[in-house]
Amino acid sequence: MSQKAKGTNAERQLIHKFWAQRWAAIRTAGSGSQKYPSPDILAGNNLRKLAIECKVTKDKSKYLPKNEIHALKEFSGLFGAEPWIAVKFNNKDWYFMSIEDLKETENSYLASEQIAKNKGLLFEEVIK
Amino acid sequence: MSQKAKGTNAERQLIHKFWAQRWAAIRTAGSGSQKYPSPDILAGNNLRKLAIECKVTKDKSKYLPKNEIHALKEFSGLFGAEPWIAVKFNNKDWYFMSIEDLKETENSYLASEQIAKNKGLLFEEVIK
Repeated sequence: MSQKAKGTNAERQLIHKFWAQRWAAIRTAGSGSQKYPSPDILAGNNLRKLAIECKVTKDKSKYLPKNEIHALKEFSGLFGAEPWIAVKFNNKDWYFMSIEDLKETENSYLASEQIAKNKGLLFEEVIK
Repeated sequence: MSQKAKGTNAERQLIHKFWAQRWAAIRTAGSGSQKYPSPDILAGNNLRKLAIECKVTKDKSKYLPKNEIHALKEFSGLFGAEPWIAVKFNNKDWYFMSIEDLKETENSYLASEQIAKNKGLLFEEVIK
């Protein structure tokens, strides 16, 4: 399976988890290839809306380009949603991190498994 | 251009209109082919969220299958969004109608140009 297909697959799994908890969730079309900022997933209930950038990696850390994070921030600010970065390291659980949790480097933001374990939230925690 | 491509094109135009007014808007991936209900477009600002089912037709009326309308209602209720049906008749302006505006028939809901003109809102009105 290609990396892209794996990513899409993982996003679909996350969508299932939201619906199972009676949150409505959708994947956005052509996220990344559109001229407007858009998260990978939008999930919501009557109280909260989550804009989520999803990453899957075999490594212990994932670098996110700054423009991706800026787009997530911009979208979330306009739409009225909480920006979250969800990372699945090496087929383990999804960890949800806020932008402030990530480590800023010169050209990117770093989401490491270490950061995820120290500061991230599990799915069950983020929807609470 | 296929009917499907025309529909996608029209949805993109609507997305542009939202962004031009500083609303964030996205098209959902695989709307219609997914197992969960999902609108064609989700648009939002800090105050409101709109779940929109889009239709383009050359005719003066458009029949929407009941399950589509029920799915729009279900999604909107869970996500916390206003359900809207946006119809573009014969390349004219988009008209936004609420579910209550449509005429219920045995198997579908009817959105006619007549209803649109009498009860529908134009884009500028719906975002007010």
